[in-house]
Amino acid sequence: MVIFYWISWGNSMINAGSITGSKSSGVPWKPCYAERMRGVQASEIRELLKIVEQPGMISFAGGIPDPTFFPTEQIKAAYNAILSDSTEASKALQYSVSEGDAELRSWIAGHMRSKGILCDVEHILITNGSQQALEFLGKLFISPGDRVAVTAPTYLGALQAFSPSQPEYATLHISEDGSVALEGGDTDSEDIHDALVYVVPDFANPTGETLSEVERRGILELAAERGMLVIEDSPYEMLRFDGIPELPLQALDIDGSGGIDASRVVYCGSFSKVFVPGLRVGWVCASREIISRLTLIKQSSDLSSPAINQRVMLHLARTIYDEQVVRACSTYRKKRDVMLSLIGEVMPADSRWTHPDGGMFIWVKLASEIDTRELLEVAARDFGVAFVPGQAFYVNNKGRDMLRLSYTLPSTDEIEIGLQRLGKAILAMS
Amino acid sequence: MVIFYWISWGNSMINAGSITGSKSSGVPWKPCYAERMRGVQASEIRELLKIVEQPGMISFAGGIPDPTFFPTEQIKAAYNAILSDSTEASKALQYSVSEGDAELRSWIAGHMRSKGILCDVEHILITNGSQQALEFLGKLFISPGDRVAVTAPTYLGALQAFSPSQPEYATLHISEDGSVALEGGDTDSEDIHDALVYVVPDFANPTGETLSEVERRGILELAAERGMLVIEDSPYEMLRFDGIPELPLQALDIDGSGGIDASRVVYCGSFSKVFVPGLRVGWVCASREIISRLTLIKQSSDLSSPAINQRVMLHLARTIYDEQVVRACSTYRKKRDVMLSLIGEVMPADSRWTHPDGGMFIWVKLASEIDTRELLEVAARDFGVAFVPGQAFYVNNKGRDMLRLSYTLPSTDEIEIGLQRLGKAILAMS
Repeated sequence: MVIFYWISWGNSMINAGSITGSKSSGVPWKPCYAERMRGVQASEIRELLKIVEQPGMISFAGGIPDPTFFPTEQIKAAYNAILSDSTEASKALQYSVSEGDAELRSWIAGHMRSKGILCDVEHILITNGSQQALEFLGKLFISPGDRVAVTAPTYLGALQAFSPSQPEYATLHISEDGSVALEGGDTDSEDIHDALVYVVPDFANPTGETLSEVERRGILELAAERGMLVIEDSPYEMLRFDGIPELPLQALDIDGSGGIDASRVVYCGSFSKVFVPGLRVGWVCASREIISRLTLIKQSSDLSSPAINQRVMLHLARTIYDEQVVRACSTYRKKRDVMLSLIGEVMPADSRWTHPDGGMFIWVKLASEIDTRELLEVAARDFGVAFVPGQAFYVNNKGRDMLRLSYTLPSTDEIEIGLQRLGKAILAMS
Repeated sequence: MVIFYWISWGNSMINAGSITGSKSSGVPWKPCYAERMRGVQASEIRELLKIVEQPGMISFAGGIPDPTFFPTEQIKAAYNAILSDSTEASKALQYSVSEGDAELRSWIAGHMRSKGILCDVEHILITNGSQQALEFLGKLFISPGDRVAVTAPTYLGALQAFSPSQPEYATLHISEDGSVALEGGDTDSEDIHDALVYVVPDFANPTGETLSEVERRGILELAAERGMLVIEDSPYEMLRFDGIPELPLQALDIDGSGGIDASRVVYCGSFSKVFVPGLRVGWVCASREIISRLTLIKQSSDLSSPAINQRVMLHLARTIYDEQVVRACSTYRKKRDVMLSLIGEVMPADSRWTHPDGGMFIWVKLASEIDTRELLEVAARDFGVAFVPGQAFYVNNKGRDMLRLSYTLPSTDEIEIGLQRLGKAILAMS
């Protein structure tokens, strides 16, 4: 047998310039980042929000689920069951396929069908929460300079997920009559490729509002006219407290296009708001063609999502999904009601706010000159209450007189106290 | 109180063209992908390897840990302990910080210090296995057309992680005397930016070989001369069966540059090979400056790794890390020895193979005209044994007479039977 050193197997070396006298000693290295990272910066507002971690703070800031109704006992039982079965344990702790656990994907396909989206297991990819799906879709569909249409305001995390792909953002204006238009991002230019439309149609982050069917159809028509992909980001959809569910854009488009494999809509879903966010399990539902591309991206990005967490989600989904939805909705409905019943007492006269039928957020426009970033500093530092300033949800520095309140994490008592504190902070700045 | 519809708040619309008569009905939509996806294609070899899943197959293909020594009982106990403490459970199931669990990062910093890398908690970021670290580093450091230097052969997954950032690959030639040269990727051009060097210095994937100190220093000098980042990907480092550990490139560079915050080396580590891969916990160790950028990328990519899995890894790391390393090494050493003792009987005369001191792989160069992709088809279909053809690890279609064998998953009996089958397949093709 011959021992050999692979690395010395010689091909002729084209540029074998000797490496001499270039020791790195003492010379600090300055990293040189890729062009695409220019758009990726620490958010000033996320820095401000570090103040939220102070003891005694009442936070309306993050869209954070209430841990008091996490199904902890069922989760513990699921881990125990999986890890007590040696065959299942070996699989759950091993590398697994990039597309995700087949049984979980199958459950999700059934869940999607119940929303009117005709699909099967091969139309589902598991991701680390829906955030990862957004990042993958940006990578797959956005070339530098492509146009991406978002509502104003929109979900901050979507902008962060897309920005490394270097889009130009245009604002999506949606009228109640279903007419939809784009503004900005040089919308008349034919040189710019229209890549995608991004919407959160149900209980949107940050506004809490839900698009009507006519508005949904308007978005689909705009997308069809311009040849765009539509990303339907719907993590809050199950958290409906009032009214009747709207059909997903994907269901409407499938009806028009003849099937999911011909559809331009990609649906992003999540277990984070119904069960728990800490297992990081979300999904994408799309045409087989798109799912196969996203699976390659998943493989190159992190091989797969944790197998064991997917198995736990499967246990929960099969056993307690519906009751958990009911529990979440009933808790959050009470909290929303408390916030809506008191908010008028603390906001400046003529301020306006949304009345969401579900989800986690109320969006406020202050009738006042107060800059809500400055308000946050005062409110958090001097009064012990936090929220997210509106500017975080705009690409163009708008929203300075707006703010987002989340009612899901604090108790109803804390909501009452927190709003009183917010009122005092507003008075202090007026 | 005024109920308002956010979406109809009008800014003047620049391009309000009415959307009429453009229903998507019946017209299947053709997706238009981003330019960067051209380099991301389904691997022909990964397709071939689907055959591995057939019953009765003995697989030397994937670098898959042996599940018989997964610490399943300890993992179960850790989940139980975390989920039985209501405060800890609430945290473990909730959203968590993007940089990862502070206590786990602190344990890892101590672990890195034991390797000679002077660092602290703020130099560590948790990722979903080290694969995710590679993808983040590609995004952060590679602009389209930048030069990335890799050994030939190199880890397939690294090529997949970098390719969406559109690098030009150059081959790193490393001589035993420590002289290092680049070949290909137009290495003389001054118009091309030299972005990074990627190496797996310990028990490399796919060769199983380990770089000596003089070779490591040669790589650092090349990188210093060309101003490049060095990615030290070291998932197998703890799996040393024989000999004495080499100092990590990062330790050598810190010694020369005056500290980790001035170092050009980024170290990627993983718990996948010592504990289990299915929890997907790895890390990056780098300067504070780079870690802060990677943390932003982590936030935009998937918010954070699953909090609960990080807490379980912390339990395992604190209690059984060393004994688990000993257990893995003793199991894998036996398997490597069995494979090395039998391989000479089945390979064509004058074939060569590596003799790794650790890790998971043996790399074989057949003294034969057989194309190893064709050999895989025959071996898997007709003889029930699988491996990875060498071509998978090259960017330029080389390696057709080479193959990678992993000895970690099959039992010693299966290794013996599998090699006999492989010998028969080679004979059948000769």
